[in-house]
Amino acid sequence: MAALAHPSSQNHLFTKLSLRPKKFTPPSRIRMSLQENAPSLAVVGVTGAVGQEFLSVLSDRDFPYRSIKMLASKRSAGKQLTFQDRNYTIEELTEDSFDGVDIALFSAGGSISKHFGPVAVDKGTIVVDNSSAFRMEEGIPLVIPEVNPEAMEGIKVGMGKGALIANPNCSTIICLMAVTPLHKHAKVQRMVVSTYQAASGAGAAAMEELELQTREVLEGKPPTCNIFKQQYAFNLFSHNAPILSSGYNEEEMKLVKETRKIWNDKNVKVTATCIRVPVMRAHAESVNLQFQQPLDEDTAKDILKSAPGVVVIDDRASNHFPTPLEVSKKDNVAVGRIRRDLSQDGNQGLDIFVCGDQIRKGAALNAIQIAEMLL
Amino acid sequence: MAALAHPSSQNHLFTKLSLRPKKFTPPSRIRMSLQENAPSLAVVGVTGAVGQEFLSVLSDRDFPYRSIKMLASKRSAGKQLTFQDRNYTIEELTEDSFDGVDIALFSAGGSISKHFGPVAVDKGTIVVDNSSAFRMEEGIPLVIPEVNPEAMEGIKVGMGKGALIANPNCSTIICLMAVTPLHKHAKVQRMVVSTYQAASGAGAAAMEELELQTREVLEGKPPTCNIFKQQYAFNLFSHNAPILSSGYNEEEMKLVKETRKIWNDKNVKVTATCIRVPVMRAHAESVNLQFQQPLDEDTAKDILKSAPGVVVIDDRASNHFPTPLEVSKKDNVAVGRIRRDLSQDGNQGLDIFVCGDQIRKGAALNAIQIAEMLL
Repeated sequence: MAALAHPSSQNHLFTKLSLRPKKFTPPSRIRMSLQENAPSLAVVGVTGAVGQEFLSVLSDRDFPYRSIKMLASKRSAGKQLTFQDRNYTIEELTEDSFDGVDIALFSAGGSISKHFGPVAVDKGTIVVDNSSAFRMEEGIPLVIPEVNPEAMEGIKVGMGKGALIANPNCSTIICLMAVTPLHKHAKVQRMVVSTYQAASGAGAAAMEELELQTREVLEGKPPTCNIFKQQYAFNLFSHNAPILSSGYNEEEMKLVKETRKIWNDKNVKVTATCIRVPVMRAHAESVNLQFQQPLDEDTAKDILKSAPGVVVIDDRASNHFPTPLEVSKKDNVAVGRIRRDLSQDGNQGLDIFVCGDQIRKGAALNAIQIAEMLL
Repeated sequence: MAALAHPSSQNHLFTKLSLRPKKFTPPSRIRMSLQENAPSLAVVGVTGAVGQEFLSVLSDRDFPYRSIKMLASKRSAGKQLTFQDRNYTIEELTEDSFDGVDIALFSAGGSISKHFGPVAVDKGTIVVDNSSAFRMEEGIPLVIPEVNPEAMEGIKVGMGKGALIANPNCSTIICLMAVTPLHKHAKVQRMVVSTYQAASGAGAAAMEELELQTREVLEGKPPTCNIFKQQYAFNLFSHNAPILSSGYNEEEMKLVKETRKIWNDKNVKVTATCIRVPVMRAHAESVNLQFQQPLDEDTAKDILKSAPGVVVIDDRASNHFPTPLEVSKKDNVAVGRIRRDLSQDGNQGLDIFVCGDQIRKGAALNAIQIAEMLL
């Protein structure tokens, strides 16, 4: 469990650079991850915010590979890209892209996944898909490695056939990283979630629009609204996902349905309200929990302190709790404000506040952790 | 019930001007509110964000008065101020300030209220206090005029004696404006609130710090942290109010305790998580409700549409719901995302999303509505 730096450290100055999705900078030393007997990889959607983060995370974790294909749309094909001191030409994604590819990391939107995912599987590729295309499909594992690794049991590189594994939605991953250790101890019966979601969830262009709009508003100019239909700078709004007849939006229903599938518990009751806030790349979530068994706040803190991928930031004396900025570009999900819910009897309820990097643990890191389990 | 403009209207361009608390501009016509038989007023803390808004609201509503004292700390005493085409000299607040004052509007912090509130009452002044000093004191009415006007029954200008009336906390007012009409219909048993609170709640200096920090961050400079100990621009954090031994902060406990007092219901169960978001002057709240009686979402919408001071913005087809920007400088509290809570059985639960201007209905407007009831 890595410690997070204190907010006063230089690491937490939100410099201009960090407003934009991280561009890959080749390390000075030659990485050792290029190995003859390692799997061949493909990154689908390599030019996007998550695609770029795939490369960062592969590099940070010295993920072993013998080759890597950089795939994107026709528009980006032919462009050059440097990764781990080697030059790559971005190739157009076609039905032939997956010949000889062991693992493909997809982050190019649902329709690309729906079409090319099965094509890749037919070629014997194991697809880790970041879109919502297959998440709720029966028989396709929906995996957070720290939470339900058993769901992808038996799927390995070298087993001679392809497979699809779905990466959950960012809000679900960040929520369940914190809640599952408590659920395993006292069984969650009902969960009420309100989210504070960053621009990055809508892609690199949304992050750029938030920055542009903020400059415009500070200059007294009307804000440019291309990605979102309304002003985002110094404002917040209900998530832009389509609204269903129930009045919930699709983002909220992902939290409801994916939680049930990941926990393999059809009865857990979940409600969510998903809101976009003018923050760049990390989500926050206020989570109210009702348990079947008693769980006091000290036990909850101890459980979370020893949970993999989780860091507890809960310093009441100095009012230091998780913030999106503090978890930005960090692997761990941070949890704080852990307290007994005064609106429930006894020790059956807790309130917690969770923050996690949307691009990293909410997307690229989780997918690559899944890929690591395939080796 | 005034309608709110659509977000695309020019009204919602967040111009540079609107980043700062509204400065009073004297109207070109002579107002008729200066009347011989009207009450004499005092504004305590007239230089603050809420103090300035008191003047705006008094003027907007043509509040009748025969004289008005502009009171502030020694630091501001002697400065000039123009209000409704008349020039005023700001006077230092002293124990003699309230001689002959019928109604005093206080917004100068808890310790000023604690000392000078009783002094004013002894002089026969009716004090409408915006601080938390007296809110929970037994016998002192805590009033939202649309919600519990009966609590201040019998208190009138001209009854020959002073009195204290407390204005609830901004988050409580905004929440209960939307929830009370539903509570009156189906009785709320439990309420889970997550807030998205604006800079204005911490005063004009906090709004200026958010603007300054945002400029600094966009220029790649370290952010100036004077009011808050951590970066606010492009970030959010747990409310800066002191944390109690329960793990709740004082802001959250205001929602819990004030709701019970205003509804005169010691048994209503409330939990809250209060978060500051980088928004200028309007709060948002995600509210999950459990009712004793069934209440379907259509009935709830109808109830809210006819509730005084409330506007329903709930257009699922165009994904148009309340935003802080849309209610900024508006009197009405906006409610949307009204839907049956899927995590509760039958029609016993609802999720709603509420936005209200923190300085206006959350503070100055509510206090002046109280003052109107004194006439």
